Amino acid sequence: GSELLAAERKKSSIDVGQLSEFLFTEEKLQRRNEILDILKSEKVFDKSQNYFAGRMDRFETALARAKKLQNVRVENKWNEDDMYIATELISEPGPYGLHEGMFLVTLRDQGTPEQHKLFLDKAVKYEIIGCYAQTELGHGSNVRGLETTATWNAEDKTFVIHSPHLTASKWWIGSLGKTANYAVVMAQLIIKGKGYGPHPFVVQVRDLKTHEPLENVHVGDIGPKFGYNTMDNGFLLFNKVKIPHVNMLAKFSHVDPNTGKYSRPISPSLIYGTLTWIRSNIVLSAGQVLARGVTIAVRYCAVRRQFADRDAPDSETSETPVLNYTMVQIRLLTLLASTFALHFTGNGMMKLYRANQKMMNEKGAGREKDSKRGAGPEETHAGSDLLADLHATSCGLKSLASSTAAEGLEVCRRACGGHGYSSFSGVGSYYADYLPTTTWEGDNYMLTQQVARYLLKSARSVLKGDKPTNDTTTILTNFKNRAEMGAAFDILGSDEDLVAAFAWRAAFLTFEALKHRDEQKKAWNDLLVDFYRLSKAHSQFIVVKNFHDALTDSTTTQSLNSDTVALMHKLFRLNALHTLETESSEFYASGAATVRQIQLARTTAIMKLLEEIRPHAVRLVDAWAFSDWQMDSSLGREDGNVYEDMFYRASELNPLNKITIDPYPGSEVLFKGQRSKL
Amino acid sequence: GSELLAAERKKSSIDVGQLSEFLFTEEKLQRRNEILDILKSEKVFDKSQNYFAGRMDRFETALARAKKLQNVRVENKWNEDDMYIATELISEPGPYGLHEGMFLVTLRDQGTPEQHKLFLDKAVKYEIIGCYAQTELGHGSNVRGLETTATWNAEDKTFVIHSPHLTASKWWIGSLGKTANYAVVMAQLIIKGKGYGPHPFVVQVRDLKTHEPLENVHVGDIGPKFGYNTMDNGFLLFNKVKIPHVNMLAKFSHVDPNTGKYSRPISPSLIYGTLTWIRSNIVLSAGQVLARGVTIAVRYCAVRRQFADRDAPDSETSETPVLNYTMVQIRLLTLLASTFALHFTGNGMMKLYRANQKMMNEKGAGREKDSKRGAGPEETHAGSDLLADLHATSCGLKSLASSTAAEGLEVCRRACGGHGYSSFSGVGSYYADYLPTTTWEGDNYMLTQQVARYLLKSARSVLKGDKPTNDTTTILTNFKNRAEMGAAFDILGSDEDLVAAFAWRAAFLTFEALKHRDEQKKAWNDLLVDFYRLSKAHSQFIVVKNFHDALTDSTTTQSLNSDTVALMHKLFRLNALHTLETESSEFYASGAATVRQIQLARTTAIMKLLEEIRPHAVRLVDAWAFSDWQMDSSLGREDGNVYEDMFYRASELNPLNKITIDPYPGSEVLFKGQRSKL
Ligand SMILES: Cc1cc2nc3c(=O)[nH]c(=O)nc-3n(C[C@H](O)[C@H](O)[C@H](O)COP(=O)(O)OP(=O)(O)OC[C@H]3O[C@@H](n4cnc5c(N)ncnc54)[C@H](O)[C@@H]3O)c2cc1C
Ligand SMILES: Cc1cc2nc3c(=O)[nH]c(=O)nc-3n(C[C@H](O)[C@H](O)[C@H](O)COP(=O)(O)OP(=O)(O)OC[C@H]3O[C@@H](n4cnc5c(N)ncnc54)[C@H](O)[C@@H]3O)c2cc1C
Repeated sequence: GSELLAAERKKSSIDVGQLSEFLFTEEKLQRRNEILDILKSEKVFDKSQNYFAGRMDRFETALARAKKLQNVRVENKWNEDDMYIATELISEPGPYGLHEGMFLVTLRDQGTPEQHKLFLDKAVKYEIIGCYAQTELGHGSNVRGLETTATWNAEDKTFVIHSPHLTASKWWIGSLGKTANYAVVMAQLIIKGKGYGPHPFVVQVRDLKTHEPLENVHVGDIGPKFGYNTMDNGFLLFNKVKIPHVNMLAKFSHVDPNTGKYSRPISPSLIYGTLTWIRSNIVLSAGQVLARGVTIAVRYCAVRRQFADRDAPDSETSETPVLNYTMVQIRLLTLLASTFALHFTGNGMMKLYRANQKMMNEKGAGREKDSKRGAGPEETHAGSDLLADLHATSCGLKSLASSTAAEGLEVCRRACGGHGYSSFSGVGSYYADYLPTTTWEGDNYMLTQQVARYLLKSARSVLKGDKPTNDTTTILTNFKNRAEMGAAFDILGSDEDLVAAFAWRAAFLTFEALKHRDEQKKAWNDLLVDFYRLSKAHSQFIVVKNFHDALTDSTTTQSLNSDTVALMHKLFRLNALHTLETESSEFYASGAATVRQIQLARTTAIMKLLEEIRPHAVRLVDAWAFSDWQMDSSLGREDGNVYEDMFYRASELNPLNKITIDPYPGSEVLFKGQRSKL
Repeated sequence: GSELLAAERKKSSIDVGQLSEFLFTEEKLQRRNEILDILKSEKVFDKSQNYFAGRMDRFETALARAKKLQNVRVENKWNEDDMYIATELISEPGPYGLHEGMFLVTLRDQGTPEQHKLFLDKAVKYEIIGCYAQTELGHGSNVRGLETTATWNAEDKTFVIHSPHLTASKWWIGSLGKTANYAVVMAQLIIKGKGYGPHPFVVQVRDLKTHEPLENVHVGDIGPKFGYNTMDNGFLLFNKVKIPHVNMLAKFSHVDPNTGKYSRPISPSLIYGTLTWIRSNIVLSAGQVLARGVTIAVRYCAVRRQFADRDAPDSETSETPVLNYTMVQIRLLTLLASTFALHFTGNGMMKLYRANQKMMNEKGAGREKDSKRGAGPEETHAGSDLLADLHATSCGLKSLASSTAAEGLEVCRRACGGHGYSSFSGVGSYYADYLPTTTWEGDNYMLTQQVARYLLKSARSVLKGDKPTNDTTTILTNFKNRAEMGAAFDILGSDEDLVAAFAWRAAFLTFEALKHRDEQKKAWNDLLVDFYRLSKAHSQFIVVKNFHDALTDSTTTQSLNSDTVALMHKLFRLNALHTLETESSEFYASGAATVRQIQLARTTAIMKLLEEIRPHAVRLVDAWAFSDWQMDSSLGREDGNVYEDMFYRASELNPLNKITIDPYPGSEVLFKGQRSKL
């Protein structure tokens, strides 16, 4: 395979190093190499048995790795960025994951200075180890339905944490199963018989010395999962456990210990900011997640040869790399285009987010209270119109991006034929670990209701004649002004028109949905499917727009040579036209494109783009700069030695090959020379 | 949860027993219960540790089960149908799988009476255990590209089996990794330096006593996979291994031991018959595979409650089962409709297959030889026009049905939100085990080329003016005759028109593809994407047609009471309209439906059908009659005790909860009180 990949790389003159630096910055790439060297030098990070081990062994190894990583971090004085890089390289969830990712963050963001001293300082030093316990066996999405209670006890100034039913058991809580001795517990605050909704409480759950569960705490691991098995997701039941007043995180909400009076003085728009930030991060990393699968599949399909070309003369006997088949290209090269589209979109979102944060900090953000409860755990807030737009957009994009990445990984796996099914492909387990991203931080289906709600609101304001204040109201206003005369976009000839066609379709669907809801008074529930489509349309518009903006941005044109920019432009068009073609019925129905245009896109424009991008496929995935160590994939090896590596792992590393069985049904011996475990 | 499911069952008066018997026959259902009782009584079949065990333990257990199953079979004199039922109930691939599924069958079908005596008789008694070794590390789909050679040696009348390169290593061979001592090896037959293509050879690979590999044989397990880990897929390399003349399976092809002359006297259309039979079986079982996921998801979503209805008055506080959300329904109820559609289609195919076999046996089938090699491992043969149609249709349907089932299972898993990700959902591992069905017996993408090739051929014959001889040429002829005047189908009002719209679209795409290939002389490779769509369109037509035929069939109307038939009719319409809506652009483009019709289908007809089917959802999945033991799912339990079961498994069965860890990074202890394996 190595000559084949070398030949692929010769066919294209794209400057891989330059493109990598553009995607990641030179500094980060170099830092990553340094960190990689350190990790490789520690035996505990050796990956060679990862695919073979069962859950117990994998968890034990993951724990050892987590500990070592902490020690290495302290030794080398790694900052957060460094830790992020290291975690990416190790590429498996670990038992300290939620301590780092949620416990520390929640204490920091929602704790008072006193609480920082009491909890955060110890947590930072790993003297206490925590998790974030919100979801319960019976409730996830609907946070207001949580059943765990925290009842204020005026006499001794404590809260009593209690799980009234089995379904109140905390469930899915990362790092809780075996590792944490503390938890931030979301519980219904009750004062004098009155409920104030879910609030965060710091609760100790295990003894700091023996690590055994405290009295009246039932805690443990929830068992094996489709993936994520190196993490100890846990359950947690309380039988009237008392905690002191100071254990209620009080930066935003507060119970006066003397009067029992509840107050909520500070606006939680910061929290919504955090959610937006997390979601924007999911969008950004979705590009990279997908890129890993695409790297593996593209390299392997350039090495894998199967059949001679059907139209080739009979004398031509050598086989074709399967990447030459258009049916493979339409699967992989469109996903390759998606990786860049998601990357630019994530970047765009982060930029907007930071700009908005800055503005808010300057203004001292105000916030209105929504009276009506939303479909998901969070609400859209009017706040600044930019924030509202950003929030809604981040919901829609989180949904679109994580679904695209998750489903794309499986497309990559399947494109590898039989070998894609081997663990050594490196796709399967990675896919399985990524999958929950479609469910957490807002289930991808449910989030679309929030997007729709925001778009309906915006459309109403446009109909009222309000001036546009952001991108969304601008495209809605444009549509409204031109709806009567209709559209005529040159989607095949003009990039701007292509973007405009996406805007048009999204606006069309918004007003359609509004008609259903406001004029025809359809029930909310009857419109969920329409809302889902609407959110997707809106989000696809944002993606196409962000990719287009990135192409014309001066950072891009200055950082990349013109060949690479031209190739990026092709990837932009492939992404946009393929999306348009896949969703064509909405483009017809809205008048954003004609049947003839779509047919031309499908039969001519897209096929031509595939052909033009094909020679650069391997170099393009090279630019994503995954190290072999990180991917741990036989099929995706940078040097193309696919078969040698598959064989080596199977024949040499595979523990099953160390035993001999007795194959006959008549004999009770199973593994020869070993006592059976059965 | 149990009251909720009981309430669901009360809402509908569908006769579950009657529908089950219609799907499976009363006899089979009863037989299944008997077999289930026997299996349950044997400790080795206990499933409670399945989700926890690692690969070594799972394989060991699977081996023990395979042995026990053989013994139970002999004891109880089970026939093949019984064994099939038992295997379905156990629901995991086992190490004798390929011995039963391919070794015996190949010996039987391709061996001479002498070879039956020599190999088959022993194999039946498990004195030898075999597998089917075709795929190699370097070649799967392209069987003609296999590299293993079998060179005829006239001197001592032997064949020398040899693997010239690493890529010639047999790979993926089920039951070979640890279990088999024999293999049917597909190897390139070479006589006097001339190649005759791949042929089957019986080769011993392990010692019958010690079970160690024979000299010059390198054999072992290929390592862990995304699923299928209870099976020992293996690799196999030969270093010039001699086998006697009699070891070449000689029913179809034969080498004269005295002259070395090669002959191939008998038509292999039987083999193509077998392939068609296997594929029809995949279609039939796809309905059932999907039904298992749908059963789990529908039951769980009827128990799972999250949020109150948004439009409900504020006083209404109780939460809604998520199955009431239309966004859940559009995912699950459409799949529920698919389960029946696939079931009827599989039945229809089998019927056609048997009719055709009978006819062939009566006629003594003739067969023409194709001169041009096809894209896949097999060729379409003119043979009888019915057989050709059946063969092509089975390729397209295998592709459509297994993709629908595989992807549908993941939709079901995700519909269960966070809990879908737990192993206890029962969906994940089942999905992972099913996935290879999309790749084997013809990769789903590649098979579509065969369908297209057949359709192009048929269209050419129609253009020449040949009389229609089967369904396909009939719809093509209809289209050709009416193409000028166009179509006007009442897809919303008439079932016949709905089916006709599917036929019209498929015919339209066929002639489009023909134009591209024959008039515009486009390269085959440039048309693969069109072919894929064409095959899908053709197959969807067959599915819709089969479902429609089943509804009007007298067996159906006589076996089911009128309520159930009416409900089936709704499921038919839901399946057809939802497919039409999903693929709407082709329906517009072909003129089979108008934009307005599709919009009405989407916004009105489909939503109404969802509403009408919703109350019967639980009873409909009940009719699929899965036993809890088979599904091994907390979420899909017949009694709805979802949370109790989740909790029990996590808290009581989970071995990780038997250990205590040391959580601090400063300590090297991992699992307390145990010697670390690291
Ligand atoms: C690997 C993993 C790790 C996790 N880690 C943590 C953790 O550390 N801490 C923590 O607190 N939680 C954690 N979670 C829980 C996670 O946040 C929830 O699973 C997630 O929020 C989804 O909620 P749910 O499971 O209740 O889904 P549900 O809401 O029950 O969803 C079930 C189905 O109902 C549908 N549905 C629900 N409501 C509506 C509606 N209003 N309209 C339409 N459809 C609807 C959904 O689309 C879905 O199909 C984790 C989960 C996983 C899988
Ligand atoms: C779990 C499992 C069990 C198996 N058991 C056995 C067994 O017991 N015995 C046995 O002999 N084999 C077995 N196999 C092998 C299986 O039959 C092959 O993997 C399968 O036939 C696919 O072939 P491949 O892996 O070579 O895929 P490839 O042909 O290499 O496919 C790679 C990619 O190229 C594409 N492609 C290939 N050719 C073309 C073309 N002409 N046009 C367009 N696209 C193309 C495919 O669509 C795919 O995306 C098993 C496989 C698995 C996963």
